Amino acid sequence: MPQLSTRITTLNEGGSDGWEVFYRARKMAAAGQPVTELTIGEHDIGTDASILQAIHASASGGHTGYAMVPGVAELRQAVADRITARTGVPTGPENVLITPGGQAALFAAHVAVLSPGDAALYIDPYYATYPGTIRAASGRAVPVPTEADRAFLPQGAAIRAAAAESGAKSLLVNTPNNPTGMVYPIETLEEIATATIDHDLWLISDEVYDTQVWQGEHISPRTLPGMAERTLVVGSMSKSHAMTGSRAGWLVGPTDAIDRLIDLATSTTYGVPGYIQDGALFALNQGPDLEDKISTPFRRRRDLALKVIAEQNTVTAIPAQGAMYLMLDIRATGLSGRDFAEALLDEHLIAVMPGESFGKSAAGHVRVALTVADDRLVEALKTLCAFADNKARADA
Amino acid sequence: MPQLSTRITTLNEGGSDGWEVFYRARKMAAAGQPVTELTIGEHDIGTDASILQAIHASASGGHTGYAMVPGVAELRQAVADRITARTGVPTGPENVLITPGGQAALFAAHVAVLSPGDAALYIDPYYATYPGTIRAASGRAVPVPTEADRAFLPQGAAIRAAAAESGAKSLLVNTPNNPTGMVYPIETLEEIATATIDHDLWLISDEVYDTQVWQGEHISPRTLPGMAERTLVVGSMSKSHAMTGSRAGWLVGPTDAIDRLIDLATSTTYGVPGYIQDGALFALNQGPDLEDKISTPFRRRRDLALKVIAEQNTVTAIPAQGAMYLMLDIRATGLSGRDFAEALLDEHLIAVMPGESFGKSAAGHVRVALTVADDRLVEALKTLCAFADNKARADA
Repeated sequence: MPQLSTRITTLNEGGSDGWEVFYRARKMAAAGQPVTELTIGEHDIGTDASILQAIHASASGGHTGYAMVPGVAELRQAVADRITARTGVPTGPENVLITPGGQAALFAAHVAVLSPGDAALYIDPYYATYPGTIRAASGRAVPVPTEADRAFLPQGAAIRAAAAESGAKSLLVNTPNNPTGMVYPIETLEEIATATIDHDLWLISDEVYDTQVWQGEHISPRTLPGMAERTLVVGSMSKSHAMTGSRAGWLVGPTDAIDRLIDLATSTTYGVPGYIQDGALFALNQGPDLEDKISTPFRRRRDLALKVIAEQNTVTAIPAQGAMYLMLDIRATGLSGRDFAEALLDEHLIAVMPGESFGKSAAGHVRVALTVADDRLVEALKTLCAFADNKARADA
Repeated sequence: MPQLSTRITTLNEGGSDGWEVFYRARKMAAAGQPVTELTIGEHDIGTDASILQAIHASASGGHTGYAMVPGVAELRQAVADRITARTGVPTGPENVLITPGGQAALFAAHVAVLSPGDAALYIDPYYATYPGTIRAASGRAVPVPTEADRAFLPQGAAIRAAAAESGAKSLLVNTPNNPTGMVYPIETLEEIATATIDHDLWLISDEVYDTQVWQGEHISPRTLPGMAERTLVVGSMSKSHAMTGSRAGWLVGPTDAIDRLIDLATSTTYGVPGYIQDGALFALNQGPDLEDKISTPFRRRRDLALKVIAEQNTVTAIPAQGAMYLMLDIRATGLSGRDFAEALLDEHLIAVMPGESFGKSAAGHVRVALTVADDRLVEALKTLCAFADNKARADA
């Protein structure tokens, strides 16, 4: 076989991709073991039947041929209207490209703003695909470290230092944040905005959890002065409407950038199924009621989980303000996040993600996805805390 | 706005993309003019109701969460079985990556085999997105010219010359061919195989029209000695099963390459909707009957069209052996393909694609898509021929 390009053989940095615990848990579950999976951001409900009916009605009505590459006009308009309403930034359909999911939007954004070899910043801890996405776009992935003691919020000085040292062209941020559950406050966003303007960076803002906010307020950095012209917002139906499998997302940005991104879409995806777009349009048109119905269990479970954590002293929680995760500090056990997660799976059949899977900054933590029924979640967290307590005592 | 990367601003070579006639025809049709559109490769039927029912049954049954990134196991197996049966090359699910359409497969293949700046060959005339796809993958797009008088079949010497001069890493071919309708004979495939082996090229073989063969036989170049280890085959449900809008395709290749392509998919698409994959599986499982039902109208129309062309002397046809198009030589009119197409649309409300839209080699030709009802097609072709005849007499 002829050689493959280096960019594709080094996507995972040649080493572990940090998902061993997840895959092992899936295998154990498939073999019939009663594993409690608190690993990935997948709802414990499927897509609402009314949305599936809308998809089927569109397909049966004949919308099965090539859809327009930029997206169905009505969906582009609906996304634009929704963003205008939620952020106050005037946004039209010409600012919107429909993509086959948020991941495709993340990738397209980086292809658009990076030339091969350009550095691209992202905040550590990060959603698992971020560095690979930058490498797939032939970019150089440069993490910006954060500190557990500052709730993993990015600091302006760290962004500036990384931008100056690497000569970066872009910065990727995510609020509400996966894996930390933090919602960036206005101060953080202002530091991000100033740094990106001063270093002439594109800001790629992943806002796919924007309907899952339990504390404070989601502010899109695109709303800050001077930012609309340098921000590409990644959105998706996955988390807000429990449509993970439908692969429907979007990019919002300056018209000139979207025009070029449409050319890119012609050469990379050739659009998104029209009947899925019609289903997404139907879902958006249901307004906040459907979104609330989907986000409410996570709000409730986050409260239940924080209560369990508060009842003991070994494990502490980053005080999640949004998204569907809880990041737990287990450093008092003396274990790494990975060793903790491996042992918890072996001894108690509970699967959580090692913090290390999301970057160096999250070492000594584990991420818990709030994606099982309330009582099962509470039970699992009680077990996790008792397990941590034992380990801490053994370590002392 | 900060600068965009050069690769995205130059996707269309900065100039016309050759689709003006198409867009103008669409506008005229949308404004209510009775345009006969013989432009793009879109069936005049929708996706079969039984397939849509299978999609809906899968979604309603709960297959709405993230599907496995490499593809649903049963679909990978079915694609592998189909390729084994049709080509004799032993192929397993580990050789198959399911992609969101054939275009995504074309793009992923080029990302996998090219490093930024590497040259990639493609045969001129070509399907419209080919050069943009290579550029989107940060490659250098190098056309290999062909000659109308040799029915646009690629010649080994031209491939070798282009490979040697550019230092290319890959060659992209398409049989049955869009836009020419030719099915590459074994002699052509042997020249391609020898050239790719001698120059250590990856062969990217676009075979999305493999069920539409009217004369001769479709031979996958992957079946030739030494080729399975250097060939990535692009397949799709679009043309064979009238599922253009569903964006379901695949790549088939060596396991080591597919493994890396799965990493790439994680960072670029995160898979394909599971319920669409289940619909594709259902469609493949219907066997040749459904494929024949979908391809038969094009076979019939191709015969009708060739008969009309044979009745006059100004226009000659490349003798289409497959796919859903007919390439007509209109050089006797003294017009370029573009001028011919523009005038035909203005004077007779018939839209065809200028040959120039598909590359320099097809200058003085127009491509006719066989995608309207038989009598309308015959009528339009008679008008086209009479129009050409008038132009030729005026030119003489």
